[in-house]
Amino acid sequence: MILDRVNTPDDVKKLSFGEMEALAGEIRELIIKKVNTTGGHMGPNLGAVEAEIAMHYVFNSPIDKIVFDVSHQCYPHKILTGRKDGFTNPDNYLVYTGYTAPEESEHDLFKVGHTSTSVSLACGVAKARDLKGEKGNVIAFIGDGSLSGGEALEGLDNAGSMDSNLIIIVNDNDMSIAENHGGLYANLKLLRQTNGQAECNFFKSLGFEYYYVNEGNNVEKLVEAFKKVKDINHPVVVHIRTVKGCGLEVAEQNKEAFHWILPGTLDENKEPVEFVENYTSLTRQYILDKTKNDKTVIAVNAGTPGVFGFDKEFRNTLGRQYTDVGIAEEHAVAYCSALATCGAKPIFAVMSSFIQRTYDQMSQDLCLNNSPATILVYWGGISGADATHLCTFDIPLISNIPNMVYLAPTNKEEYLAMLDWSLKQTEKPVAIRVPNVEFISTGVEDKTDYSVVKFKVVEEGEKVAIIALGNFFELGREVKKALGINATLINPCFMTDIDEELLESLKANHSVVVTLEDGELDGGFGEKITRFYGNSDMKVLNYGAKKEFTDRVPLDELYRKYRLTKEQIAEDIMKGI
Amino acid sequence: MILDRVNTPDDVKKLSFGEMEALAGEIRELIIKKVNTTGGHMGPNLGAVEAEIAMHYVFNSPIDKIVFDVSHQCYPHKILTGRKDGFTNPDNYLVYTGYTAPEESEHDLFKVGHTSTSVSLACGVAKARDLKGEKGNVIAFIGDGSLSGGEALEGLDNAGSMDSNLIIIVNDNDMSIAENHGGLYANLKLLRQTNGQAECNFFKSLGFEYYYVNEGNNVEKLVEAFKKVKDINHPVVVHIRTVKGCGLEVAEQNKEAFHWILPGTLDENKEPVEFVENYTSLTRQYILDKTKNDKTVIAVNAGTPGVFGFDKEFRNTLGRQYTDVGIAEEHAVAYCSALATCGAKPIFAVMSSFIQRTYDQMSQDLCLNNSPATILVYWGGISGADATHLCTFDIPLISNIPNMVYLAPTNKEEYLAMLDWSLKQTEKPVAIRVPNVEFISTGVEDKTDYSVVKFKVVEEGEKVAIIALGNFFELGREVKKALGINATLINPCFMTDIDEELLESLKANHSVVVTLEDGELDGGFGEKITRFYGNSDMKVLNYGAKKEFTDRVPLDELYRKYRLTKEQIAEDIMKGI
Repeated sequence: MILDRVNTPDDVKKLSFGEMEALAGEIRELIIKKVNTTGGHMGPNLGAVEAEIAMHYVFNSPIDKIVFDVSHQCYPHKILTGRKDGFTNPDNYLVYTGYTAPEESEHDLFKVGHTSTSVSLACGVAKARDLKGEKGNVIAFIGDGSLSGGEALEGLDNAGSMDSNLIIIVNDNDMSIAENHGGLYANLKLLRQTNGQAECNFFKSLGFEYYYVNEGNNVEKLVEAFKKVKDINHPVVVHIRTVKGCGLEVAEQNKEAFHWILPGTLDENKEPVEFVENYTSLTRQYILDKTKNDKTVIAVNAGTPGVFGFDKEFRNTLGRQYTDVGIAEEHAVAYCSALATCGAKPIFAVMSSFIQRTYDQMSQDLCLNNSPATILVYWGGISGADATHLCTFDIPLISNIPNMVYLAPTNKEEYLAMLDWSLKQTEKPVAIRVPNVEFISTGVEDKTDYSVVKFKVVEEGEKVAIIALGNFFELGREVKKALGINATLINPCFMTDIDEELLESLKANHSVVVTLEDGELDGGFGEKITRFYGNSDMKVLNYGAKKEFTDRVPLDELYRKYRLTKEQIAEDIMKGI
Repeated sequence: MILDRVNTPDDVKKLSFGEMEALAGEIRELIIKKVNTTGGHMGPNLGAVEAEIAMHYVFNSPIDKIVFDVSHQCYPHKILTGRKDGFTNPDNYLVYTGYTAPEESEHDLFKVGHTSTSVSLACGVAKARDLKGEKGNVIAFIGDGSLSGGEALEGLDNAGSMDSNLIIIVNDNDMSIAENHGGLYANLKLLRQTNGQAECNFFKSLGFEYYYVNEGNNVEKLVEAFKKVKDINHPVVVHIRTVKGCGLEVAEQNKEAFHWILPGTLDENKEPVEFVENYTSLTRQYILDKTKNDKTVIAVNAGTPGVFGFDKEFRNTLGRQYTDVGIAEEHAVAYCSALATCGAKPIFAVMSSFIQRTYDQMSQDLCLNNSPATILVYWGGISGADATHLCTFDIPLISNIPNMVYLAPTNKEEYLAMLDWSLKQTEKPVAIRVPNVEFISTGVEDKTDYSVVKFKVVEEGEKVAIIALGNFFELGREVKKALGINATLINPCFMTDIDEELLESLKANHSVVVTLEDGELDGGFGEKITRFYGNSDMKVLNYGAKKEFTDRVPLDELYRKYRLTKEQIAEDIMKGI
């Protein structure tokens, strides 16, 4: 194995081109085996093996500084920078994160997981170098899919006018997670077709010197190009054409499906997955039905259709009633706002972690204009995910924007009723937190009118009132059981407003109110309840997540830490009554 | 007067070119007089007079739909669409807002005030038209300064690949508020120099058909160009070259100063303004001193240097220790994050209303990486501003992000100590809310170590504790006086965390805690205090702003409405003790 001789980037520099090609094969094999075992990003890593070998051959990390965009393609880099044990030994498969992590290595500059950040970060790295009078190359390594994000475009505009060394490697595999969208991609295509020679060049128009490498999975060609730009004294773009999933036939043929895979995807004789209804499939079907019956209903997403089950069949069926804006959440919200203002019925599906990318558009374009668009927030809640992909913060983020209505359904029928209400009404922007817990169907149609803020008293009791929001409604039910008293159980439905009349009425025969929410407590739902009771004798206990970034901490561990088990909560309540 | 005959856009269509040129002169005169009386946006409106006349001559608003970016250049449009009485009669000067306002006219589509939104909004308007099977042109009117914002760039990328009518008029006056920054502007310059003929064309690279009008203050030339693109069936950019401040010599010569002016700026014999120290001048001087003594300190802002007193002298003095990223707040935060990570000391100055444009970068690039950058948030607090420029939301927005330290100084010495601490420490991202109240100097150096969360007990008392944050600290002092009892007065300094030890100790001899904050209560500072006391006998009263968009409501009216006068607060407290 060549890899036996490679422990640091310096070792890469000693290899011949033939050895580097062989090394690429070895790395590829490790990645395929590891990702198929643990699940993770397959296509992005396989496509970038040669580029990362060539970078470490030409540049001198960590003096030269490489900033990865999203960084879900950094596995070859990790293998080359002292962390190959996380790939060669299955026992270590989970030792290293799937993203760059400064705590792991001096070769990783930033903890990164959201897209489109690398160019701006690289500008800062380069400027710090210049202010401190240091030397060295600064390299941003960005995939084509990330280019469409506002932060990347702002970064490119600024980078193009910098006056010192800055190298942007555009890893062009003609794909976002799904196919690419937007005018920019037509230009990348033109550049590929003309071997980089077309006069109409997005990067040149922003002030960059420009190089094109057609064989972006050929180490020698890459080394040649990188050598040309090494130690350059101005901003340059090296546009390399790579194959997503390169070297794994099935991944090359199914680029979208193999962007990120579940464990065992490559294994033969897999059990066929049986269809089980869940909130994702329910939403998918709901949108299919609605768009069929109303030509003004339109589904919108920002570059992650797979998360919502918006597969090719769905996309083809919807046709012009479907827009994937690419990675461009700001545009998505403004676009939906205008669609709604003009009488169409947009439904924007987005992950909780990514709705963060568009606060100002929610505030200014959407809520200030009271545009009746519908936003579906997926995966909201405490999770064991990477620190970069936590979905804990959407309640504080969304629910404190004026005019917004943010709803938390607790079962199928309630969710459908909220969807129906949101699409019918024309007064308010509405966000709905798609339940992220076990699927529950009551079998009873929900006929609530959600234009009035009214919490639902599900079980009327006394002394203790448990206000259990959305995902945590069933937890509330369990807490009541654990308490063993006739507590009141409330499903608040709304995260943006409180039902003052109901809260006031609770004072008559309750002394403790408990709030449960699946998200950050600071700035969240429970605090609104507590503020209401601030000047009364009511005791209020708020349960939810601490304000912190957690990193791959198992969910049950987080629950225990935040005292979110039914036993812990019941214990606390009993102390108070 | 030609204007006597013009009450609707239809009337514009009856005019000859000569009459339209004369009309432009009349409109210009009205704008100059009005803006010099009330204050407001001068240069942007004077530059766009002919373009807006030509738009209404060629297009049929409101069937054709015009979306203004920022909309601070919409005065000619307002005059032409039935609202000239707001300009001809000084008594009506304040009747109409300075921005587009759908409640005023069917010719205004959106309430807009933040930049870079028009292209995305226009995409939505166009798509709604197509879904509903309607006809008509959709026009986005965007200034060159707004092009650098992420939302505009995401919008352009998406717009460039649309398959129906969409017309983007780029109003290029070679200026943001101050001079333009970024690679894109070099391309606009090239296009101006080549009369639009250069092959390297940013807009074409994004898929647009492209037209150039060199004489953008000539109605006839504009009409000719607009006629060419009217009813076009694909996206097109019409790049028009205009003169900011056109027709007012002093504004043409001083483009930055005349972007927005104070009342009476044009009047002769003005009293010379005497220099009075305030928090803006203090900050400016502080940065001048720091950058001089430490070459790694760098001041950053996003296209609004004038707000912070970053005038030409300041910019020239700082040289390479100054970056104006243009309107690109996302880039600014990521750039500062990387600067800080790499050992430089960035200070990002930004208005409260615009920090909203970069939540995800604060969360992911900055706080997740614990980058020790300093963000100075100006103008934070309740205000009588337009709904589009409220500065009420920064506490909920910023203070619920993990790892962030958000500080609220109450006087000069405290502010300087916080600045010093922030620049010295290397552990945490820090934001400081620059005081937005009367300048106070204690004359006593503040030697607090802000690395520990400790509220300051300024006056120790009993029964009632007043926790008065930042801008509202002096209000807290007044409330204490109005109460006439020996209340405890606390300056909490921190908005992101609470001093649990102190709060716990208050339980001993206090029964009421009052929080005062100059911002939205929902998700804000006070609720953290209330949550702490939720399970205790302490009564807590929170004072701040309601969650709502207000629009030019006078500050004293808002204070009364929110019960923020010292008398109202004292009255409420007395009820509770």
